[in-house]
Amino acid sequence: MATVVVDVMPKPEILDPQGKAVLGALPRLGFSGVVDVRQGKRFELTIEGEATAEVLAQVAEMAEKLLSNPVIEDFTVRVEDI
Amino acid sequence: MATVVVDVMPKPEILDPQGKAVLGALPRLGFSGVVDVRQGKRFELTIEGEATAEVLAQVAEMAEKLLSNPVIEDFTVRVEDI
Repeated sequence: MATVVVDVMPKPEILDPQGKAVLGALPRLGFSGVVDVRQGKRFELTIEGEATAEVLAQVAEMAEKLLSNPVIEDFTVRVEDI
Repeated sequence: MATVVVDVMPKPEILDPQGKAVLGALPRLGFSGVVDVRQGKRFELTIEGEATAEVLAQVAEMAEKLLSNPVIEDFTVRVEDI
């Protein structure tokens, strides 16, 4: 079995209210030095067998159709040893 | 400036309803071969200056106090070239 990670983040030009909320809260908790925060989603998919190129292409299709909204989000797909 | 990524995932023993919902939807979209899905959050923090060990320790503290719920979630902190 393999673990494939899909990271989904808001497109750079899209307003990220969640990220802005975190950015605003950090100074109130005494943290400094953070210039920007962006928040997205992380999916860990456990796959039967090896993560072949074909499997990664299928995961990219899952990301496009189900895990992300291609209008406002970008995604990346990679194999990770968890 | 550096980008530090914080990944927040549900603890393994914690029920992950979002992940289960995605897992259940995949076959309906014609996808097979996925044994499990876990869904979490990804934060990209843009930091002033270099990501020193001290900065990474501060980010871990931010993750513990603000970005995650340590009772039900685990987090990892790493530097990433975005």
